[in-house]
Formats: sequence, structure tokens, C-alpha cells
Amino acid sequence: MSPKQIDGKEVAKHNSMETGVWIVVHVYDMTEFLEEHPGGPDIILQYGGKDATEEYDPIHPPDAIKDNLDPSKHIGTLIPGSLAPPAPAAAPEPVQSTAVVTTGQVAAPQPYVKPDLSEILSLHDFEAVARHTMNRRGWNYYSSGADDEITMRENNTAYQRIWFRPRILRDVTKVDFSTEILGHKSSMPVYITATALGKLGHPEGEVVLTRAAHEHGIIQMIPTLASCGFDEMVDAAAPGQVQFLQLYVNADKSRTKKIIEHAGKRGVKALFITVDAPQLGRREKDMRTKFEGNASSHQTKGGDKVQRDAGAARAISSFIDPSLSWKDIPFLKECAGDMKIILKGVQSWEDAVLAAERGCDGVVLSNHGGRQLDTAPAGITILPEVVAALNQRGLLVPPGKPRFEIMVDGGVRRATDVLKAVALGATAVGVGRPFLYSMSTYGFEGVCHMLQILKDEFEMNMRLIGAPTLTDVVPSMVDISALKVPTVGNTMFGVNYETMYPAGVKAKL
Amino acid sequence: MSPKQIDGKEVAKHNSMETGVWIVVHVYDMTEFLEEHPGGPDIILQYGGKDATEEYDPIHPPDAIKDNLDPSKHIGTLIPGSLAPPAPAAAPEPVQSTAVVTTGQVAAPQPYVKPDLSEILSLHDFEAVARHTMNRRGWNYYSSGADDEITMRENNTAYQRIWFRPRILRDVTKVDFSTEILGHKSSMPVYITATALGKLGHPEGEVVLTRAAHEHGIIQMIPTLASCGFDEMVDAAAPGQVQFLQLYVNADKSRTKKIIEHAGKRGVKALFITVDAPQLGRREKDMRTKFEGNASSHQTKGGDKVQRDAGAARAISSFIDPSLSWKDIPFLKECAGDMKIILKGVQSWEDAVLAAERGCDGVVLSNHGGRQLDTAPAGITILPEVVAALNQRGLLVPPGKPRFEIMVDGGVRRATDVLKAVALGATAVGVGRPFLYSMSTYGFEGVCHMLQILKDEFEMNMRLIGAPTLTDVVPSMVDISALKVPTVGNTMFGVNYETMYPAGVKAKL
Amino acid sequence: MSPKQIDGKEVAKHNSMETGVWIVVHVYDMTEFLEEHPGGPDIILQYGGKDATEEYDPIHPPDAIKDNLDPSKHIGTLIPGSLAPPAPAAAPEPVQSTAVVTTGQVAAPQPYVKPDLSEILSLHDFEAVARHTMNRRGWNYYSSGADDEITMRENNTAYQRIWFRPRILRDVTKVDFSTEILGHKSSMPVYITATALGKLGHPEGEVVLTRAAHEHGIIQMIPTLASCGFDEMVDAAAPGQVQFLQLYVNADKSRTKKIIEHAGKRGVKALFITVDAPQLGRREKDMRTKFEGNASSHQTKGGDKVQRDAGAARAISSFIDPSLSWKDIPFLKECAGDMKIILKGVQSWEDAVLAAERGCDGVVLSNHGGRQLDTAPAGITILPEVVAALNQRGLLVPPGKPRFEIMVDGGVRRATDVLKAVALGATAVGVGRPFLYSMSTYGFEGVCHMLQILKDEFEMNMRLIGAPTLTDVVPSMVDISALKVPTVGNTMFGVNYETMYPAGVKAKL
Amino acid sequence: MSPKQIDGKEVAKHNSMETGVWIVVHVYDMTEFLEEHPGGPDIILQYGGKDATEEYDPIHPPDAIKDNLDPSKHIGTLIPGSLAPPAPAAAPEPVQSTAVVTTGQVAAPQPYVKPDLSEILSLHDFEAVARHTMNRRGWNYYSSGADDEITMRENNTAYQRIWFRPRILRDVTKVDFSTEILGHKSSMPVYITATALGKLGHPEGEVVLTRAAHEHGIIQMIPTLASCGFDEMVDAAAPGQVQFLQLYVNADKSRTKKIIEHAGKRGVKALFITVDAPQLGRREKDMRTKFEGNASSHQTKGGDKVQRDAGAARAISSFIDPSLSWKDIPFLKECAGDMKIILKGVQSWEDAVLAAERGCDGVVLSNHGGRQLDTAPAGITILPEVVAALNQRGLLVPPGKPRFEIMVDGGVRRATDVLKAVALGATAVGVGRPFLYSMSTYGFEGVCHMLQILKDEFEMNMRLIGAPTLTDVVPSMVDISALKVPTVGNTMFGVNYETMYPAGVKAKL
Repeated sequence: MSPKQIDGKEVAKHNSMETGVWIVVHVYDMTEFLEEHPGGPDIILQYGGKDATEEYDPIHPPDAIKDNLDPSKHIGTLIPGSLAPPAPAAAPEPVQSTAVVTTGQVAAPQPYVKPDLSEILSLHDFEAVARHTMNRRGWNYYSSGADDEITMRENNTAYQRIWFRPRILRDVTKVDFSTEILGHKSSMPVYITATALGKLGHPEGEVVLTRAAHEHGIIQMIPTLASCGFDEMVDAAAPGQVQFLQLYVNADKSRTKKIIEHAGKRGVKALFITVDAPQLGRREKDMRTKFEGNASSHQTKGGDKVQRDAGAARAISSFIDPSLSWKDIPFLKECAGDMKIILKGVQSWEDAVLAAERGCDGVVLSNHGGRQLDTAPAGITILPEVVAALNQRGLLVPPGKPRFEIMVDGGVRRATDVLKAVALGATAVGVGRPFLYSMSTYGFEGVCHMLQILKDEFEMNMRLIGAPTLTDVVPSMVDISALKVPTVGNTMFGVNYETMYPAGVKAKL
Repeated sequence: MSPKQIDGKEVAKHNSMETGVWIVVHVYDMTEFLEEHPGGPDIILQYGGKDATEEYDPIHPPDAIKDNLDPSKHIGTLIPGSLAPPAPAAAPEPVQSTAVVTTGQVAAPQPYVKPDLSEILSLHDFEAVARHTMNRRGWNYYSSGADDEITMRENNTAYQRIWFRPRILRDVTKVDFSTEILGHKSSMPVYITATALGKLGHPEGEVVLTRAAHEHGIIQMIPTLASCGFDEMVDAAAPGQVQFLQLYVNADKSRTKKIIEHAGKRGVKALFITVDAPQLGRREKDMRTKFEGNASSHQTKGGDKVQRDAGAARAISSFIDPSLSWKDIPFLKECAGDMKIILKGVQSWEDAVLAAERGCDGVVLSNHGGRQLDTAPAGITILPEVVAALNQRGLLVPPGKPRFEIMVDGGVRRATDVLKAVALGATAVGVGRPFLYSMSTYGFEGVCHMLQILKDEFEMNMRLIGAPTLTDVVPSMVDISALKVPTVGNTMFGVNYETMYPAGVKAKL
Repeated sequence: MSPKQIDGKEVAKHNSMETGVWIVVHVYDMTEFLEEHPGGPDIILQYGGKDATEEYDPIHPPDAIKDNLDPSKHIGTLIPGSLAPPAPAAAPEPVQSTAVVTTGQVAAPQPYVKPDLSEILSLHDFEAVARHTMNRRGWNYYSSGADDEITMRENNTAYQRIWFRPRILRDVTKVDFSTEILGHKSSMPVYITATALGKLGHPEGEVVLTRAAHEHGIIQMIPTLASCGFDEMVDAAAPGQVQFLQLYVNADKSRTKKIIEHAGKRGVKALFITVDAPQLGRREKDMRTKFEGNASSHQTKGGDKVQRDAGAARAISSFIDPSLSWKDIPFLKECAGDMKIILKGVQSWEDAVLAAERGCDGVVLSNHGGRQLDTAPAGITILPEVVAALNQRGLLVPPGKPRFEIMVDGGVRRATDVLKAVALGATAVGVGRPFLYSMSTYGFEGVCHMLQILKDEFEMNMRLIGAPTLTDVVPSMVDISALKVPTVGNTMFGVNYETMYPAGVKAKL
Repeated sequence: MSPKQIDGKEVAKHNSMETGVWIVVHVYDMTEFLEEHPGGPDIILQYGGKDATEEYDPIHPPDAIKDNLDPSKHIGTLIPGSLAPPAPAAAPEPVQSTAVVTTGQVAAPQPYVKPDLSEILSLHDFEAVARHTMNRRGWNYYSSGADDEITMRENNTAYQRIWFRPRILRDVTKVDFSTEILGHKSSMPVYITATALGKLGHPEGEVVLTRAAHEHGIIQMIPTLASCGFDEMVDAAAPGQVQFLQLYVNADKSRTKKIIEHAGKRGVKALFITVDAPQLGRREKDMRTKFEGNASSHQTKGGDKVQRDAGAARAISSFIDPSLSWKDIPFLKECAGDMKIILKGVQSWEDAVLAAERGCDGVVLSNHGGRQLDTAPAGITILPEVVAALNQRGLLVPPGKPRFEIMVDGGVRRATDVLKAVALGATAVGVGRPFLYSMSTYGFEGVCHMLQILKDEFEMNMRLIGAPTLTDVVPSMVDISALKVPTVGNTMFGVNYETMYPAGVKAKL
């Protein structure tokens, strides 16, 4: 049945509880759904009678409305041009238009010019371009971390506390950094880890990564909270292309079962059960996005605003089951069938041991990119004790069974980071934000360029450490004696702290 | 007897030793009291013949004059309007009117706009708003620390050197962070610790905290040096609301006895004897407040100015007994009756052991918010050795007796900080400055919002560490291997140090 | 045969594959050589029909063309003035014309005035002058390091983690810091280590260092990748002046043999085989030089630009043999005859032990000045464990044989740095960049002044540690308990990280 | 014989080797003395025919000319007004006239107003005022350190790595911080250590300190290189006032004998033999003073300028005997008679043990204020191992003999620093620069105010650590577990290091 054509003026009238709340993503009547909306009613009310498409698209999978709304609520499609587009409220606006960085000197700001892709030499470069060209909403969602972002920064810093112990005079004419992850070939020990809301950075969303993964022979982990639909991402894969699925387990178990079984049918090879997020974290930089530019306008009181503060992350995650526990593992294994089961977000050797004992196929040592529990340790920091504990119990290479695989993610920006993880016993490393940044700035070509940079770095650095293959990258190739020395700090406290000045010297802030 | 009405012009004449010194807080003749004034005669002389109300109020409890002055010195009440108000000498003036923070770039200062309460996302935010909106006198008194403020900063920094060891796959649907402190229910393991001079931040003073404590089910510790009177704060409590009392022991023991017994009668449940302040510390930032804006004017010599330098803290504390020692504990216990006795300011395991052996009910590991002895360690830093020492001697959980309770205060800004202390063995954590900042910026609503933020953080973070209740928050949930690595420094030395520059490169400071 | 004189207009026509590619270094026809060019065809094509002399000279030894091109390709010599010089594309331009360094204050930039040589007090000073006066191409090539330059900075930082344990009351009237390196006298325990492309800094190139080495009685290590020719540098030496040769082993073994045997005939005393560079590292600061000033102009796509990005280092190094391994040592020893064989770039005690066992005469603990593998440790950091491992196996002072010599290079700026290495067991220390900076700024006189500074520092500091001779500089003179504490960090991540700000305080950048 | 009156015009003619070199400090003919001048001939030639008084005075003791020049060279006294004063070449000029310190914000510089003495709250404050008001020559001489000033900064930083372990509930009504140093009473465990050239900061020089020492009951150590004469300083002492003498041992032993015996006769109680300065260190910041403001003028070449670079320190110290060794101790002891002998500048436990074994009465753990050997450790850092080594050998409290006394100096700014040294076993702490800064800024009153501040801090802090007397300040009162963690760095390297920036973000220095 072809949907009814609706005039925008009609829509514009339905903007309150009294008139009913219609919004344009097609035109739907949301009045009765308001209270059920996982992100709270406020955000819908705000778009009542308006065109919410731009706001809606990147943070909902395509079938979200169909899955949640009775078909009767579908009023029809909008008559094109009949509704003025909303003022781009908190919408696109570059983080800053200048990019001169100085240290204490007056410099005339220069307009930011996006560099040619050939100028991008490292993963850091994509991040720099993203910071200066993405709209603030997307940048803030991608780049923010939990609380004081101590863990987020530590994820990167921890790698700098590991020194190499390179070997010399080994024939490194041919260097092979290909590997297998859970039995599947990968051109390097790197996979695309799941990150949410890809359309905040690129209009096509996660399928861009799907294609680049194929182009460069690596594995993509499909996120539950993608902007693209699950099937859309599977369809985007080339024949034989391996994909994994990251899974937030739904409080509604039947729904979880349906999702897993569907994934199995579509050829997904492994399930990565997120276990570090019984509730999605607060990312305050992201939450502050909401208030920018209108500090004086919302002079309202308490309570009813709280919902609105939560940022994109929490608005989309209320379905996650906080009761998920070890006793659910058999159920998940049963649903999974042939698919392997990996726990993503393990943060102690005790839980890695439990995972192996309960029959999981591996773990990802992860703190969710520093977005969940602040002052959780970096995955790389706990990797040595996890390996030791598993080895001690014979669980790492169990007789007659495949190796229990350990992966790590968070903070990786260089192939050297990956090689350190491999040396310490990781199968592979998940990379997240750098993929979002390369996709958001240069699209498919950017992601491919990024992967080529990593390959160049692998080739060079394996030569330089004296390892022709990844099996030569062994624990004695790194010195971790300084691994547990903290080097980070609480920047928020530092901003608030008022420096003392001696007599006669006055501070201006 | 209704007091005599006095004309302001009459008052204005009495402004020296010759004419007698009358000051207006009602109109009193202070001439004979000058030398007895704990804060020294100068400050009174300065207000001779003037209206001292605004200066007097926040730093004296309401009954200070009645307690110290003979009724005959009460001249009468001022005829309203008959005395011009004093020029607001060192009085209200925002710390700064701009709030642009840049790193090495020219930025046009923007007027500071106080954010809507709903924008306040963390305890840091209250502090930022306080810094930019409080008058300098109040901000300096609250925010300053001893000497080079090394300990004050360490109090916060120490928490960042503790990493979590979170557990996964535990059912955290329901999270319960309520607890008991000294046998009394608290909605979370946090109490309002005693801080002085609440009226420097809010005209109503500490009763604002009393009401918020009730609203959110936590316990307030009443300070000896409150701006509000003791009874006023007890009266402000709701029926059944638990309050503790912080006590500076008076050199005059009979006075101490009277205070304790009165507290007992009024229902106070525990006495927190301050043991880290035989003398109140020097807080140089606070002391500098006096000199701001008039650097060239006081070209006087030495001596007689010293008294004036001492800042608010010392002016109000000369009664404190520096002879207080372990031999006074039996006397205090006797006065206390049913009230529990806690030593506040313990800084070594040796003294914690002594406290337990001498029959105290607990200790607070505290350095007085970094306001007393600089380079004293953070309470959280010594907590592990205190717990170990008590345990080793069977003093922590003595057979047949209530647990000896250990509390910690100083530097806490996040629920994660509190959870680390609980994991290491603390019953609860005292929070001080954040309450002052939330009260000073948004009043009662601000304090409630702050407590709600803490509750949200507790709920989230207990889920994320895998602890449904506080009894699940155990030592193995933290990694303290880096706890004793110092990360702070002496900023004053750094400001004075003149950086070297190589040839041809000249520094301009 | 006198070469033919060519008119520039004729040359200018030969600028593509169609017309043939002539370039002016004398006039050669490069058409057929394009694909064989170690630096790739693009860079030659870019100069087709143009005068490439200025670009060619500093990065090729004088006999490069004769060795690689058939004489028939030599078209002739250019008729002077008949070809317009190329626009000085990425050419000389001072790094900056101002040198005021301020910390957060507005300062009017002052024009940089090169200081008189007598004002140069330390090796740091040469570096400062070089930074402000060298053209960007030379500065970037010399000063850059691998990846995030963590190792490059660590090389210097590591020395600051070693404290002296000076001795007193020893007669230090006469201080003798002369020594022997591989049996050859040196006026101090310092040698000039090999660095490439000396003409980027000084038009005469490495021979300037040859002369200064003689003037001050130290040993120069001749680099394979010098701008001057090998024989030119040997000819520049005074009679009896000792020289070493650094060697990149060529994939073409016969060529290597020829080079070594020729070196032996010319009197070179020792071969330093570079073993840390099977492939030359990426130095991103250097690579960025290419793009400066023309961000918007090259809107070309992918692929064909990659070659161009590689910077000077890689363009000149494609001949290096990545298959070089321990099995080639006997061949190298045989070619070397009487010359000693030292492995330069050893980074673990395991390989130092192997080197001694395979009959090498010594090792240089080096990470190639931080230019190869980032997060490789500083040589000084691993020196203690190398000495211990060799000693334990009796390999350091083998009975009846000369001592196995350990050298260190990287990050040295002070005689104190050298003395620390000597105390820990090094024979001598290689210094690289400081020689380039002194040569590039003040030429021969600059290098001599630098060596005099080092001698002054040695005399003073040996007095101050109480060591009349280098044999008195023993392990107990240093405290290395803090050697393995990391103090560096990833600046690139830091630049990208967006600092958080509390509510109401907005960041600009 | 009354000296001849000389007309200035006559003097002005004698300004070269040809005419003879007369200079005005009285009028002397220096021609023949030029080559013998310890500071080199250049500096004298520069003042030939001119009035050198202002330059001469602060860096020579009064009897320097009489001791070194034949009376025949005394031409006579200058006819007043007959010689124009020299242009104040590198002379007085405030370090800077503004004192606004900002962190990354544009601030209009404000004129520096010297604070009233009553505003000076800490020793840091004197340093700040000195930095902003002293002439650059004096400031640079006082404030500079050796090489990269790493040790100078470490001297202060090391104290921040020691945490207190304060005790509570001890009767601290009366606090007594008086002590005995080498058997002589001192009002606190602090003495004025020897520092050179007092007249660079105050026209009266070191006698100002003599008087203040008496006023506050502490002991002054008279410096060899004082601006005042030795007898002048002894004469300035009050009857019974104890003084020590710091001694640079002269290469001419008979001269040393004469000095020591004279000191004994004048009542000096102890000799502090400087053993860390066989040669005076290079302080580059001080040396740079010479070049300021005239970078372009001296376009001269090499060599002959070197002498001029040496700065004040080396110009006055060429007499020091670098051959001084343990075998000279008996000679010094014999000269000393009843005076005690202390070695100042011990930097290892081995030498402290030797000192005790050779019959010295004590040592000062010192690195000469960071002015000699850079990266020598702070005295406080090695104090624990020195005490342990002496104790182990029974040398600290030898049976039947006075305690072997250990003193420490360098970096002290707070009474807490001193108390840490006392806790770890030091008798007392030498303070140097803070005395110079208080003297240079506020003269006698300033020094007294500084000593009063220290006394206030002692009283307060001994209360706060729970120590009624210094014998209660014991090792268990400090936690030194983090003492050996380095926190400093090489700022010169940091200034030269060019920070990397990602693509599209360009640095302007």
C-alpha cells in the first residue's frame, strides 16, 4: 500500500500533546509512543511538527520505526517542499575554522585547509583532520570518553610505556604480517571493532567500512548500534568476506535469540558479546554538545531536563540487559550454534579464566575505548597477567582444542602498538576511532589509505624488530618493566585548580 | 529589655581607642574586649565606628558576642539608615568576569554566563562555576590549602593512581549503594564533612546542607566553626535525621564538656574529634586576599601587620587546645556518653591502632583537605596500610564488638573515587568543598543536584565494576601497585624558576 | 674526451617520456634509467628538462652517476646561462625569522640575530641556532625521528634519569680524558658517528668534519650516505688520521666486497656495519616538508604520490640489503681483512652476546638516533644489561684477546652524558646531530668550538666527579635506580586530544 | 703616606698596553699584573683608563689589591669628578618591569609594584620579588646553576617526594625547635650557608646577614668569596655570636694556613672545607648575561673571547687548589686547632664514611646549590644511605665521642623541608639563596622577616607532625618510598625540540 501524501502545513500543526505529535521520518504520529521512547519523550516533543530526518537518521537503524511502531501510526509521506527544514539547531558547524597551534605566541589564525589525502602520513593525521572538519556533534560523540577521560588517554599512553627489544641480523627480505583471527584469514593482526552511529561521520555509514575491509583483507565487526541496518552491512560484504557481530544482549531474550540466529544464517562467523556495558557510560564532552551556543536560553528548573542531557549514547541503549551474567552463557552458546563466542570487555585475569572455563572461544581485553568506566586499566596493561593466568591453568592452548584467543582494543594508533600486543600474546587488535576518523574525512578512499599506512608500518616495523612473521613476535621482544607507572592525570581538576602566585605577581585566571 | 536605638552619627564618632570603639553588629562597645579578641585587635579597630555586620556575620556563630561580651557593652540597636554602609573594601567581586580558557592563543574574553543547573554534569562543574562567580574572599577561603598546596592537589591526584579491576557478567539490574555509617543508614557511602564559614558562600549558611542531607538521605557533620549556630543546624534537621558533630576541643575543658553534653542532648550521634589541627594552618592564597588591589597603599613597617595577615582561618581558631593528647580520650568518652567517638585527622597506621586500642569507634584518615600540614599524604594513600595494621592486630573486626570504622576524606570528586576507598576498606568518604561549591552557586537546589549526580554515578559505576552492593566492592577490585608514585610538584618554585634559553633565543619571562 | 656543450633551450625540451628526460647535472639522458632509480622515477621526471644540480648534489655522492649510468647517456655540459635556474621550490627558507620564546604572553617578535660564535656555550646552542637559521629541508632531515619521535626524545631523556655519585678529595690537578677506541688514540671518549647528507647543512659537506676531527684529535666515522665521496673524505684526512667506515651492506655482495676492500686499501681502521636499518625509517616531520606551502594545489588521487612522500632518507637507501643476517658475518670479516668489525645498532644483550660469539670486535648500542624503530630503547638504557650479560659469559674481557668494545650513541649533548656511558662500561660515545648543527651554522670553526666545549666540559666534570682519568670513571659513580622509569609521551596524541572543560568554560581550540 | 691625587684626564689616557693600563679603584697601574689576574687580562683591559669601582667592588674582597699588587703600582687617588663614570654597560636594569603571569591569555602588562614586607608570606615570595627587582647581573649570578640546571631544580623537587607521617594527640602546647650545631646553640636547625658576592644584591654585603643571624639566634657561615672582608664580617658579629668559616683551600698552602689560623684567632668555631669545587662550575645563564643587548656588536673571532665568557664565578676562583685530597686533612686539622672540621660537598656515603674515619667532625651533603656538577643528586636524596652507612660502621654516634654531624643544603624553601632532613638524621640544614633574596630585596628587615617566617613555620609544622622537640622528629615521621623517582627534565633540550604537528596543523615555533 502506497503511503498517503501529507502536506507539511498539516504536519506543522501537530506539535504538542493536545494536537498529537507528528514527526517527519515519513510522517508518523508519535503521541502514544512518547513514553516508551528509549531516549525519553523530550527529544521527540522537540521535533513535533517538524522534519526530524536529519536528527533521526544517524542514530537509528533503518528498521527502528517498523519494529517499534504500530503501522497505524504511519500517517503517510510528506509532500516535498511543503515543510520548511528545521533551523540547523545544534547541527553541523566545524569544531573550529582555524588550525594554527602555537605555544604561547600570538598567531594570526589561518583558515583550515583540508590536506590532500597523500599528505596523510599516519592515523594521527586523520584524527587531526576530523577534529577540524567534522561537525561538532559527530566529533563529540566519537571522540569523547567517560568521566574525566583518564582511561581514554591511558589507552594510548600505556603503549608508550612498553619498550621494544629489537633483534638484528635476521633475514627480513620477506615480511609476512598476515594472520588468522578465530580461524579466519586476516591480512594483518587488526580488525575493525564495533563503533556506533557511523552516519554521524559519513552519510553512507558503516557499509563504507565493510567495503574497505574487503579491499584490504581484514575483518569487520558489525556493531549492534550501527546507523546502517544489519542486513545492509552483510549485503555490502563481498562473497566470502568474513564478518563478526558485536552484540548488546537485549533484556528481551527472545529478541536476542532472533538476532543471533539471523546472524548465523547470514554467515556471521563470531559473536562478540559486549560485557563491559550493562549501562552505557556518561561521556560528558558529548553531553555538553547539547548546551553549546544557548547558555542563557533554557532557564528552566531541575528534573525534566535530566533526560535530555544524556547524549546520543544513552538515548539508544536503554534496551541493554543489566542482568546478563555467567548463567546466560549456555543460552548464548546454544543460539550461536557454529558461531564462536567471544566476550568483549574483559578487564581482569579472573574473568578471562572464567570465560575459558565456561567454554567461550576468546576474550577482548577492552574498556570500551575509555567510554564506560573511568580509571579502568588499558587492555594492554592487563594483557601480561591475563596470559600468565591462562597459561598457568593450561587454558590458553588447551590440548586437542583451538587456542583460546585474546584480543585487545583501545588507543592503538601505530602498527608498533599492535606488535606490542602481539608480542605479549594477543591474536589481534581491534581498532575503532581511527576508522571513524578516516571514514568521516575522506570516505572509502580514506579508510583504504589508512589501512595501507598500517600495512606499510607493519612491514617496516617487523623488519626493524627482526621478525619475518608474526610468530617471531615474542614476549622477549618487549620490555614491560615500566608498564604500571601511571603517567596520566585529571585534567578537569587541573582546569579548576587555581595556581598559586607569589607576592606581587598576580594571575589573570 | 528592648535595646536602645542608636543614631549612626553617634556610632561613627567612636572609632579609636580615645573615643572608645563601637561597632555595629548591633551597637557594641568593644574597647575593653580588643585585646581578648581571638582574631587580634586590629581587625576590630578597622571597623570602629562603622557597620561591621557584613564582615562579622559569616565568620562568627550567632552567639559569639553573647558568649564573650558583658551585656553592659551592648549599647543598643542602630537607627536604620543613620550610618552609611562601609565601602565594600575587600568585599564581593567576582574572581573574573571572563571564562575563556585557551592554550596559547589569542581569544577575545567572553562574559561569563552562569550555566543552567541542568548543564552541571559533575562535581567539577560546580567548582568551575564557583571559581567564576563567588566573591574572591569566599573562593579563596574555601579553595586554598596549606603552604604550596601540594597535599591539597595530591588528595585528588592519588585517586588517579588507583586503577579498577572491574568484574563482568554479574547481574547488576538492581544496584544498592546504601550503607550504614556508625550504625546509621546512609543512602550512599558519603557524608557531608565539616567545613567552616558557610555564609561566605551562601547567606543562609550550613542549614542549606542540613536540608539537602535530609532530602537525599545522607548524614551531615556539623562543624564547630559554622557560620550558623549549633542549635540552628540541629533545628533545621528533620525529625529522625542523623547528624554528627565535628569538634575542635577547647582549651577550656569545662566548655568542651558543656558543648559535648549539649550535643548529646540534642541527639547528635557521633563526635568527630579533630586531631590534625592543634593550630590552624597557613593558607597563603587566602592570606593574600587581604592585599589585593592596594599593593602600594600600606607602606607600614613590620610587626603590627602580622596579625592582620592571618586570614579567616586563624582569626577564628585561637581557642583550640594544642595540649590535647591521648590522655584526654577518657574524658571525652565520658562526656560523650552514648555518642560514638571518632578521631578525625589520623595520618598513620600507628595512630589508627592507638585509636582502636584506646576505645575510639573509628578514625577519619584525613589531612584536613590539604589545609594543615603540606606534604602530608592523602588519606586514600595510607588506607591500605591502616587496614592491614588493624587487621593484623584483630582490631578492625573485634570479636563481639562493632567493626572499627575507617573513613577517608579529601579530594573526592567522583563516585569512582568513593568506590576505590570502599574497596580498600573504608566505610564511607567525607566530601567537603564540593558541597560548599554547589551551595554557593545554586543553593539548596544545587546541593540536591550534586547529590543526584553522585547517585547516578554510583549506580552506573557499580554496574560497571560488577558490584550489586557495597559488600561486593572488595580489595581485589582495585590495583594499587602505582599508589605511591608521586605525580605532583611545587608550583611556587616553578613560577619563580627562570627557564633557561639557548643562545639567540631570549625569554620574555 | 671533452664533453659536448649543450644549449639550455635544447635541454628544456627534453622533459617527458616522449621527448626523453634530460636533466642537468651535467646533461644526461635519464630516460632509460628512470625505472632503476633507487628513489623512484617521479623525482627525476620532476626535473626533466631542468637544472637539477642544487637538488641532486647534497643527496648523491659525486660518483653516483658514473657508477650507475652508461657513458653514452652523457649528453654533454650545459652552455652556461642558457637555462634559467629552477624556482627554488621547497628550497631554502629559514625555519622562522623570529626567536622570541614566551610562555603565554604577548611579545612582539624580534628578528633573529645569529649569535657570535663566542656566545655559543653548549651543544644545545648550536641546535638552537640551526633551528632558526637552517633551511627547512636540511633542518627537517637532520632533526626528525621515526613515527612519534618518542625514542628520539628518550635518547636524551634517559641520561637525566642517571644520577652521579661523585667522589671528593682526589687530586684532580691533572685530568686526562684521552682514551683508545678500538686501539686508536682519541683525545676524548667521543667520535663523530656517521650521518647522511652533510651538504644539506654545509656546501662542503662531511670533509669539514674530517678536518675538525684532525684538529681536535678525534675519530670520524665515514658515512655510506655522505654527500661527499668516500675518497674525497679519505683524501681530506691528515697523514695518520684515523677514520672508521659506516657501512650499509649492499644487496649486491660483490659491490659490498669492492667497497670494503677499497676502504681497507685506503687505510680505514674499522667497519661499523649498520644492523638496525634493513629498511630506512619513516620520519614524518621530514616527509611533511614536501607539502608545506601548497596544501591546496595537489588535488591528485592516491597511488602515484606515495613515492614522492618518502623524504630524503628513503630515496637514497633502496640498495640496502634486508636479507643481511648472522650468516653473512664470516663473509664480511673476510672482506675486512685487518679492519675491525663492529655491529652498529645492537639493541639487546642477546645480540651483543651473539656479536661477541661470532667474532665481532664490538657493538654500538644504538637506535639510529631515534630515526628507525620508534619506542626502541635508548642505548644508554640497555648498556648495564649488555655489560652484565657479556661479563657473565666472559666475553667482555676475553683471556688473551682485546676487550670487546661497547659504544653507545644517541641523544648526547653534554660531557656528563658521555661520562655516564663510560662509567657504565662504554669505550666511547658516538655523537651525530650536534656535529651537523655546529657545521651547518658556523662551519669548520663551529665544529672546533663545539669540540673545545666538550673538552672544557670533560675537564671540569671529571674534576667534579673526582676522576683524574677515564679508568677512574667506574660503575659506582652513577646511580641507575631510576633508569627504567619512562618520562616521555606521545605528543601527536596530545595535540589531537581535545581537553575537556567544565560547564560555562568554553575552549577555543 | 697619603696617596697622590690623580686627575681623571690623566687616567683616561692610560687605557692600552702602550700607554700602560690604569684603572680607578683608587688609581692603580695594572700593566704588569694583567697576565696574573685570576680572571684574565681582558676584563681589566676593558676598564683601562676608566672608573672600575662599581664593577670591582662586589666581586673582590677589600684587601684583594693590597694582597696582590706591589704598593708601587698604586698611582694615587682620583680627583673627584675628574673622570666621567662609565656607561652602565651590562649594569643594573630590572629583569623585567612587568609581573603579570598568565597562562595562555592576553594580558596587558602591569608595572611591577614591590609588595610591602608584610605581604611576604613565604621564602618563595622573596625570590619572586628578587626576580622582578634585582638587576640582571646579580639575579643571574645568584639564581643560576650548572649546565642544564637539572640538579638545581632537583634540590627543591626531591623534598616533594618525601611525604610526612604525622602523629596526633601529642601535647604540642610548647614547641621547641632550638638545637645545637657542632655544640653551639641555634634557635632553629638552620644556618646561613656560605654564598659569594653579597654586594651584587645589597650594597653592604654579607654583614647584613651577620646582624640578622644575631638578631634571630642562628649561625652564619662566612664565605671565602664574600664581597665583605673576613674581618669586617667578624667585627660585625655581636659579642659571643658564633660564626663558621667556609674555606676554599688555596693552592698556596702557607696562605691557607694563615687564613685558618687567623680565623681561629678571631673566634671562628668551625671550618667548612668546600670539597665539591676543585674548579668552579659553568653557570650558563650567568655567562649569557655578558652578551645581552649586544648580539650583533662583537663580530670577533674565536679564542680571545673565551676568557670573557666565564662569568663572575670563575673570574674569582682560579686560586682554588684542585690537588686537594684526603692526605691534606691532617694538615688542615693541625691548622684548625680547636676549630671543628667539616667537609662541605660530600655526595656519597663512601666519602662520608671516609670523612668520619679520617677524624672530621661532620659533613655537609651538598651539591653546591646545583652550581657545580649537573645531575649530581640532591643532598636530601642521599641522606638516608649516608646515615645507614655510618650507623652500620658505628661512626655516627661513636662511643665516648661527640656525634658525627650530618648537614644538608640545597633547595630548601619551607620549614617542612628542614624537618624532613632532621627526621632522616640531619643536625641542621644550610640555607643559601633565600637569604640572598631577602637581603637583596628588603635588606636587614627582609632577612629578619624571612627568619620569622621560618620560625612561624617551624612552630606550626612541629605541632602538625606531633613533635614538641626536634628529638621527636624521627625517621618514622617520613615516607621515603618515592624518593628516587625522578621528576625533572632537561628544559634546554625541550626548548630546542620541535614539536610535531599532524597534517594540516602548522606550528608557528
